[in-house]
Formats: sequence, C-alpha cells, structure tokens
Amino acid sequence: MADQPSIRLYVDEPLQAGTTLQLAKGQSHYLVNVMRLNTGAPVLLFNGTDGEWLAEITAADKKACVLSLLEQTRPQCDEPDVWLLFAPLKKDRTDFLVEKATELGASRLLPVITRHTQTTRLNTERLYATATEAAEQSRRLSVPDVDAPLPLGDILRTWPAGRHLIYLDETGRGQPLAQVLADEPGALAFLIGPEGGFTADELDALGKLTFSVAADLGPRILRAETACVAAMAIRQSVADSRPPKTQDRRN
Amino acid sequence: MADQPSIRLYVDEPLQAGTTLQLAKGQSHYLVNVMRLNTGAPVLLFNGTDGEWLAEITAADKKACVLSLLEQTRPQCDEPDVWLLFAPLKKDRTDFLVEKATELGASRLLPVITRHTQTTRLNTERLYATATEAAEQSRRLSVPDVDAPLPLGDILRTWPAGRHLIYLDETGRGQPLAQVLADEPGALAFLIGPEGGFTADELDALGKLTFSVAADLGPRILRAETACVAAMAIRQSVADSRPPKTQDRRN
Repeated sequence: MADQPSIRLYVDEPLQAGTTLQLAKGQSHYLVNVMRLNTGAPVLLFNGTDGEWLAEITAADKKACVLSLLEQTRPQCDEPDVWLLFAPLKKDRTDFLVEKATELGASRLLPVITRHTQTTRLNTERLYATATEAAEQSRRLSVPDVDAPLPLGDILRTWPAGRHLIYLDETGRGQPLAQVLADEPGALAFLIGPEGGFTADELDALGKLTFSVAADLGPRILRAETACVAAMAIRQSVADSRPPKTQDRRN
Repeated sequence: MADQPSIRLYVDEPLQAGTTLQLAKGQSHYLVNVMRLNTGAPVLLFNGTDGEWLAEITAADKKACVLSLLEQTRPQCDEPDVWLLFAPLKKDRTDFLVEKATELGASRLLPVITRHTQTTRLNTERLYATATEAAEQSRRLSVPDVDAPLPLGDILRTWPAGRHLIYLDETGRGQPLAQVLADEPGALAFLIGPEGGFTADELDALGKLTFSVAADLGPRILRAETACVAAMAIRQSVADSRPPKTQDRRN
C-alpha cells in the first residue's frame, strides 16, 4: 500500500501551514462514520488554489471533524484549460460523463440545450458533487465548474475571445480530432451534441462561427457520453504537458 | 430524420439475397412489442461476416417475427484487431466498460484476474448481450468476443505469437500511449489493471515478457474503466483507417 493517506478532500477554505479547519457535516460524517478515522489520522486536502496539503485529524467529531494542516505535499500547478459543452442525457449517463470528464481534466462543464436535447432539467448541485468526488479520487488539484444549462445559441452569442470551440460533427465533415488538436493549442472547448445529433441548421450555424472548427471521432457511431470521454482522452494524449511522476501514485 | 431504418439487429445466421429468417423470441418481442413495428417495416441486420443487410418484416409475430432480406447496404469491412484485457469491476462499471469498448472497436474482451481484482464472478452471457446491443447501436458489423475470466498468468503463458500487449502502468514508467501506439502497428491487446493497480511482482513479470510494452495515460489517476475507454479512444484516433463517410450516419 502507498505511504500516503488515501483520503483526499476538496475544501473551500484557504490552506496554509498552521491552519486549523473544521469540516462541514457531510465530510465529517464521511471521515468519522464511513471511513472510521480517528484523531491523528492523516488526510490530504486541496482547494483549487493552494496545492495539496497533508492534514491530521485533531478532533474526530462526526458532525464537525477538525483538521490541523501539517505541510504542503504538492504545489498548485497549471491544469488544462478545457471546457466541455454537452447536451444533458439521462441521469446515469450524465453522471458518468461528469465523472469521466473530471478525471480527464475538464476545467468547466457547460450543459447546453440543443434542438434534439432530451433533458433540460438538471440538478447541477448533484453534478458538482459528482465532479468533486471524481476530482478527489483522481488527485486533481481543482474541481471543474459546473454551469446551469443554457441554450446553445445563448452560449455562442457570448463566447469569450481567444477560446477555440471544437465541435464533434457526426456527419463526418470534420478532420480527425487528433489532427485538429495539433493545430489548436491554448484555451479550448469541446461541444458534443445530444443522442439525436445536431440539426442541419445547428451545424450550419456552428460552421459559420469565426472561433469554431469541426472534428471527427472515427468510423463508428459513438453514444454522446462516449464521444465526450473519447474527446477528452484524445486531448489529454495530444496536449497535456506531463509533470514528473513519483512512484507513489498508487501501488 | 435519417432515411435509413434506425433499428439494427445482430443475428447469428447467414445473410444473403432472398433469405427469409425467423427471429428468436427476445428480438421478436423487441421489434413487435417494444418498437411497435409491423409488416413492411425495414430493419438492418448484420452477423459479423456478411456485411449489413436491409430486411423487411413479413410476419410481425411477437414470438417469432419473420424477416425477408432485400439488399446488402454495406459490405463486411476490416475492423480493428484489438483485444482488451481488463480486471472485472463492480457490475455497473463493468457494463459501462464493455459498452464503451465495443463502441470504440474492441474485437475481443478478456476479463483477467489479477492480485488486486475485486470481483471474479462475472456473468459473461450478460456482458455479451451488452456488447451486442452496443454493436447494434454503433453501426459495427461485428460483436466482440467476450471470454470467461482467467488468471492473468494463464493468459500470458498461452499468449499468441505476433500480438503486442500494451499494459497501462500506473506508476508512470511507460511512454505516453499515443507514442507507444505509433510504434506498434498490427494486432494489439491492452491490459488495464484493477482499481488497486498491479502489484510490484505483476509489473515485474509484465516487464519481462518479450511481447509487452508499458504505456502511460497521463498525469491524473484514472479509474480502471476510464483507463479502458481512454486507451481505446486514443488507439482509434491514432490507428484506425478511415473509411469514406456518407451523410446518412445520423442527422
């Protein structure tokens, strides 16, 4: 087994040497009742800005567990700047998509409503909790933002300068994604349509944007959530800078 | 909507012009009771060897629906020769893995038992049904084989000549997968370990094989099923030859 504590928690508070912090009820319950940790047990913490910290439980209260910060174990590092725009799917497939996109480094998850989108109701609080858990388990140092759903047209009308939008065109008119990614460094966003695909009008509008490019994922038809995971995995293989690794990731 | 019939079924019978075939009870029930199809409705069929055929329902019996073959819509084509060796996970994550690996072109799925594998019981019949459904929906012309679980050592001892084994080494000692794939054309197999990772002994043994190479999936820790999907997606982006596409894939 690894020497490092295997429990990592995201917290929404500053992390620095000597700090003591009291966990909220949910996380306290998890550490004390579920994981059965007691005073002195080590826990890793991150908050998206201060790196990763080793902390120790100093009061194992199941409603308000207290941690004392010991030392920084990893500095905050640059993470990929990649947004994922996706049409909400059925509940379990959306959960899956959010979990996998988080593991694969998405910085922001934006549910978009297109013509053929099946679901417009979305519990973004729950999705954020799913993303947080995935970030904790994947050793990320941040949790992706999870936006409220918006119509595709609204998102495109207020698109930020300098960010490339790569949309996966199921009709096969785009270049292979790996090739597109080689030409599009910097801030990125992927847009993946719903199970029913984009309409001809939507594809037409997407093709006319100055910041967009069509890409293709290969010869078979992929489910929408598979396309999301595939795009994120291919991006990671092409683009991520690779920090030095140690043997302690897992054993 | 597409002009093509949207229902595709895998059948285990020869497909040729003029053939009439009677579907089994499950598929008959699906067409007649679930999809509410009637006599004259078009259905696409494939069997893994004879390409894809357009058929028409000639008797809509909910227990033994009869189809008449009209014409071949796609010839059988070469599909990727890629095996996926994976340690069985919890039920829903294994289902997910099988579905996604099928969409992404796996030709054979081999559950392997390693030291840290959590589950050795596996309903391979059910997994084959999941793979069949995924193949039907992804427009594949074949269904991957699904093997019974075997200990990793047994599989490695009887490894076929000429097939490269790429194992995903979570300790980060491999080269990035995209780079490994560029050097390893031909018959491939991926091996992805369980949630607990490979043991030092297992990694040692894998490193000594003449047919194996270690690969790495990037800076974050991926769940086992995410690693499977990522590896398959990256392979597809690097290796698949791209058949010409038409606009009728979906609209």
